[in-house]
Amino acid sequence: MRISELSERSGVPVATIKFYLRERLLREGVRISPTQASYDESHAQRLSIIRALIESGISVAESRRVLAALDDPPPHAHDLLGMAHAAVLPRVEEDIDTGEAERLVEGLGWRPGTCDEAVLAGVARALQGLRSAGFDVPEDVMSVYLSSIRQIARAEIAGVPTESAEAAVRYVVLGSVLVEPLLLALRRVAEQVASAERFGGA
Amino acid sequence: MRISELSERSGVPVATIKFYLRERLLREGVRISPTQASYDESHAQRLSIIRALIESGISVAESRRVLAALDDPPPHAHDLLGMAHAAVLPRVEEDIDTGEAERLVEGLGWRPGTCDEAVLAGVARALQGLRSAGFDVPEDVMSVYLSSIRQIARAEIAGVPTESAEAAVRYVVLGSVLVEPLLLALRRVAEQVASAERFGGA
Repeated sequence: MRISELSERSGVPVATIKFYLRERLLREGVRISPTQASYDESHAQRLSIIRALIESGISVAESRRVLAALDDPPPHAHDLLGMAHAAVLPRVEEDIDTGEAERLVEGLGWRPGTCDEAVLAGVARALQGLRSAGFDVPEDVMSVYLSSIRQIARAEIAGVPTESAEAAVRYVVLGSVLVEPLLLALRRVAEQVASAERFGGA
Repeated sequence: MRISELSERSGVPVATIKFYLRERLLREGVRISPTQASYDESHAQRLSIIRALIESGISVAESRRVLAALDDPPPHAHDLLGMAHAAVLPRVEEDIDTGEAERLVEGLGWRPGTCDEAVLAGVARALQGLRSAGFDVPEDVMSVYLSSIRQIARAEIAGVPTESAEAAVRYVVLGSVLVEPLLLALRRVAEQVASAERFGGA
């Protein structure tokens, strides 16, 4: 199909598709004339994933890395997650102290070497942000965070499909990244429900 | 103190402080000469909150709304959360169908009218993003999301301090917004731990 048809089918404007092509998020179509290229089903599918990533607030550079992880997965299933996480995490800064983060994530079953440095640094950075705002998470709330998040992660990883490598890659890479906005959105609803229960409605 | 001292104490460059002043995130100091102003402890405290918000990836416009919610809280405790959430959520688009989101959040104890439209629209948007990427959350994983998120929200709201209105406002507004990066970071660690448990380390 031509770019105009790809645009119509996907609901993505032609100019945006051209932007994705320039940014190497979407593979070039097959040239059929000096000014025209032809696109197929794989482009339409890829386009829907690009849209979902970008609309989840993931940057163009991060999306490119997530797509690379989908296209060229590592041979070992466990490394998939590392690739998905690395795609959306900033590089580790030299000077971040992960001591407090390490003590905290022991409550998630973490042991030295179980997870990527960038992921641990993410916890350290989040703790630093809270501290610099002078915000303390009460101890009993933190312990519910740890136990609930552990339940979530276990259910997610138990659900990794094993019938095909492709299905596993999609599940891990997209699930890890694209589910984040859903979890935050569900938390907001649950907070308002709990607040209405405790303080009564408006 | 002068702006240079405020900069030294907070570790925030003078140019960045001036940017926050121009953007009305930070209140002007008291003019002591045509070219100088004096800042006090309240400026230093505010500056640390601004840094935490901005470093959590919250935009300048959103941070301004979070700060406004801190400065001018609504009289009813339940409305605090609505203000905090509204500060970081986009306005509701006219055309978003919240039917599927409503059915889902019934699992969180939601009933019509229990939460703001923007918060519900956030769930609908997140579900739309997953669908457009062709990603299905398995039913049993979704049910763990709902039960775990409900536990989290209940613990958070149970922890709202009641000894002073100011403490309650800080807890609800900053806790709701600033804890998000921590929860996502903890989930990444927990996923890698669960993945190592299921698939073995790298």
